Order: sequence, then structure tokens, then C-alpha cells
Amino acid sequence: MTENWDDKKQQAATWFQTLRNDICAEFEKIEEALTGTSKQDLPIGQFERKPWQRDNSNEPNESGSILKGGGEISLMRGRVFEKVGVNISTVHGTFSPEFTKNMKGADQSNGAFWAAGISLVAHMQNPLVPAVHMNTRMIVTSEGWFGGGADLTPMFENDEDTQAFHGALKKACDTHDKAYYPKFKKWCDEYFYLPHRNESRGVGGIFYDYLQSGDWDADFTFTQDVGKAFLACYPQIVRQHMNKEWSAEQREQQLIKRGRYVEYNLLYDRGTTFGLKTGGNTEAILMSLPPEVKW
Amino acid sequence: MTENWDDKKQQAATWFQTLRNDICAEFEKIEEALTGTSKQDLPIGQFERKPWQRDNSNEPNESGSILKGGGEISLMRGRVFEKVGVNISTVHGTFSPEFTKNMKGADQSNGAFWAAGISLVAHMQNPLVPAVHMNTRMIVTSEGWFGGGADLTPMFENDEDTQAFHGALKKACDTHDKAYYPKFKKWCDEYFYLPHRNESRGVGGIFYDYLQSGDWDADFTFTQDVGKAFLACYPQIVRQHMNKEWSAEQREQQLIKRGRYVEYNLLYDRGTTFGLKTGGNTEAILMSLPPEVKW
Repeated sequence: MTENWDDKKQQAATWFQTLRNDICAEFEKIEEALTGTSKQDLPIGQFERKPWQRDNSNEPNESGSILKGGGEISLMRGRVFEKVGVNISTVHGTFSPEFTKNMKGADQSNGAFWAAGISLVAHMQNPLVPAVHMNTRMIVTSEGWFGGGADLTPMFENDEDTQAFHGALKKACDTHDKAYYPKFKKWCDEYFYLPHRNESRGVGGIFYDYLQSGDWDADFTFTQDVGKAFLACYPQIVRQHMNKEWSAEQREQQLIKRGRYVEYNLLYDRGTTFGLKTGGNTEAILMSLPPEVKW
Repeated sequence: MTENWDDKKQQAATWFQTLRNDICAEFEKIEEALTGTSKQDLPIGQFERKPWQRDNSNEPNESGSILKGGGEISLMRGRVFEKVGVNISTVHGTFSPEFTKNMKGADQSNGAFWAAGISLVAHMQNPLVPAVHMNTRMIVTSEGWFGGGADLTPMFENDEDTQAFHGALKKACDTHDKAYYPKFKKWCDEYFYLPHRNESRGVGGIFYDYLQSGDWDADFTFTQDVGKAFLACYPQIVRQHMNKEWSAEQREQQLIKRGRYVEYNLLYDRGTTFGLKTGGNTEAILMSLPPEVKW
């Protein structure tokens, strides 16, 4: 690593924490703002924070990896957000040769890596409010890059929400590079797809990885802008629908649709499967799973 | 294939169908026999059968495999069995080189295989009744063998059920080879384990694979005996507990425990992950997923 990464790592990790704070504050405001629906009498949700820390041992775990660092889980079960998890983490260590060989820019001699990021999944009480996922991260091996994205999973699609979500992400992309949005939208569509169902997970959004344009500051700003775009558009979508009443049939359909989310995350999601295989924090990784599901 | 497999394949496929019929008949009797609990007023469950057939095309599917043949899904949603699926199938074809290389006895030049089997998963209304899985199969590549097993997943362990289940399987094993039960029990414990949770899926049972002792008839009889042992012990366990009332807390714990079942099947179960990756019948494969789950 010829570049001095220390300052960059610090900046990125600080940003992920700031974004986490802003998102949690906004989501708690939404919890307070509910005025209608059958869930109004439930307690107003508040995030519970749970920090976790690796023991920082130099002994490889069962997967052969050495993982150090830690993170913080923020979990809220509320009356609008049936279950929402917002994780941040800053970890480093070395992956075993088995996992290292698939790692971009991994120094084959030691598999050393550093990673920080924020990861969010929200499952909503109201079937008329879409579920959502957002994640951005910075990774350093012998190279350093950003990755992430956000995608929307409505139970009942409607063009207005889809356009609002995509529009906000497109705007964030276009400020940086007109080629980003079409490329990252397509990547998202391809990534969040369930081949065994011939179904998309939802209506997409953007997905990007290995972003290292050569201008770290620009890439970092872009990653910040993705987070800000999410924060600008998703809460609006929630507020627009959260006070509408729903039917038992709509709830049923929501629970079935959530099954697809589970299938996707456990069968295909790289973060989930790679995280669990390398001995990552199970509670943090599986916080994405919905509160209630039917098959 | 120097042996004449046609007759053996026919015998095995016929057995799996017979066993399916016997199990479904017994489970329907159990549905009728319920006398207590809050679910008694639900309609008495009956199996619905759904045959499926490959188009028998010689065109490889998206995974590069050619799959032919078909099967039958038997699904019941009742007042004792909240959701139980009993699948039989007889399929053949060729796997792509990617999948063939991990196949035992696969002729590397064409990856041809034949497989027949029965697969069963039962998720119960009553948290005091254990969930269960049973599967036996015959596979032919350039070799031919049997595999299968059965394992019990109580929500609340009790020694009596565990001993009854293991006792029946041990008896079936011991009739054939005293070495079978200890070996197949250990294999089961190792197989149905969730490393990311440091948890076993349940209290085990037996698991065996690649059984080709050199005496096909003996191996076939053993596989029949495993099915018969399952049919002799599991219904007894169900009948013993099904009329007991349960608490909301016990139901809650059941729904959480079922989440582990989902995690296991989608993350680790070879039949599920291999089946989905090679373009198997999604509906049949994912019938194992519980009717309702919480995380």
C-alpha cells in the first residue's frame, strides 16, 4: 500500500457513523409521526444500540480467518418500522487462502483487509410501505475502493415510489458521472435477482462495487451522496403511505413476499453468505431477516 | 454401468411411492384423530397432490444441466400438521461439468445421473410436537448407491421423544449392521449443524450417503427399513403430544426456532442448494420451508 490510507479510513468510518446517526434520528421521528392505522397504539419505536467487539486474537477462527475490530448494531421494532436494523462496523484482519483468492487486490501472501461500512434493512408494519435496503462500504486490501447501493422492495409496486427512489439515486449519480446511474442500475437489477423464482427482489435501485476512479475524494463524496440520497427519498416514501389502512390479504401477501427476501439473502447475498462463512458477527449479518414471514 | 440397473431403479421408485402413500395415509389419520387444542375447529387437513414433469428437452438449462423426468408434491396444511410436504421424484439427465466434478462416480465425459427418492418435512401447529425431516434416495451415475436419513427438531427437547426416535432408527440400523447406527448418527449430528449459530438443528437421528455395500438388495432393504422405522415412530410422537394445549410464549419460541430451520436449509442443506443451483423444481425443493417464521 503506497498510499497513506490511515486518514482515508478514518474519514470513511466517521462518515458511516454520522450517516447511521442521521438515519436513526429520522426513522425515530417517523415512528413518532404515525397518526393512523391499527398499529398506532403500539409503543413508539426507539433504536436500541448494541456494540460488539472482536477479541482481537491472532488465532484464526474456524474458517481460517483472523477478524479484528467491531461494530454497532442499531435495532428498532416499532409501530411503523416492524423491524429495522442499521449496522456499522470497522473490521480488519486476514482471510484464509480459500477466501483470499476471490478477493480483489488481496495480497496473496497474507490476505490482509480492512473494511468499514453501514448496512441497513427495514421491514415495515404496513404492507403499503416498501421494504428497503441500503449499504455502503470502503474496503482496503492492496487496493482501496468503495461499494454499496440501495434497493427498494415494495409489496405492491407503484410507479410513483419507484420513480421517487430511482430519481433520487439517479440525481446523486449524475452529479458525479453520467455513466454511473445506467451502469449501477443495471448492476442492481442483475444482482438482486432470484433465478430459482425468475423474480427480481424488488424494483431495484443502484449497486456498485470496486469503485476506484483514481480520485479517492470523488469516490468518497459519491458514497456519501448515495447515503444522503437514500435519506432524502426513503423517509418521504414511508411518510406518504404509513397512515393508510391495509387488509388482512395485503398483510398475507407481505409475509409471502418477505419469504423471497429471506431466500435471496441466505442463498445469494454475498455479504450474508461470505460474512457467515468467514465467521463474521452472526447477529449483525442476520439482522436483515424479516420479523415475520410465511411460506 | 456393467450391472443391469433398470429393474433396481424400478423397484426403488416403486418403493418410494409406496412409502409416500403409507405416510400420507397415516398423517391424514392423525389429522382426524385430534381431539383437543385451539386448532381443533380448523378443517381436517388432507393432502393435495401436484404432479410435475420436466419438458424432457435435450437443451441444457441455465445451470448447464439437462434434467428430465418428474415427480409429485403432496402438501397438507391441517390442524395438526401446520404444513407438511412429502415429495417423490424420479429424475435423470446430465449435470454440467461444474456440478459433475463434485459428483461421486460421475462419468466426467457426460455427467449422466439417475435419481429417485422421497423427501418429507413436517412443521407442526403444536410447539410441543417436534418438527421432522425424512429423506431417502437412490442415485445412479457410473455407480449406484442409496442415501438418506431422518432427523427430529423439537422446539422443547424431551428425552422420551429423543429416545423413541433414535431407538426406532437404531433398531432399523442394527438389523443390518451394528456399525451403521453409531456411524450414521454421528454423520447426522455433523451434517445438521449451524456453525454460524453454534447450534444443532435438532436432536439428530441418522444420515447416510454413498451406501453401496456390494449387496444391492441389502442396501435397498435397509433404505426401506429406514422409511418403515420413521413411519413407526414419528406418528406415535405426534399422537402423544398433539392434544396438549400450548402458550403464546411457546408458539413464539417455535416461530423463532423455525428461523434456524430456514437458515439451515437455505445456507447449508445440500439437497436445497444443489437442487436450486442445477435448476431443480423450486416448488418441490422449497416445500421444506416452514409456514410461519419469526426473526
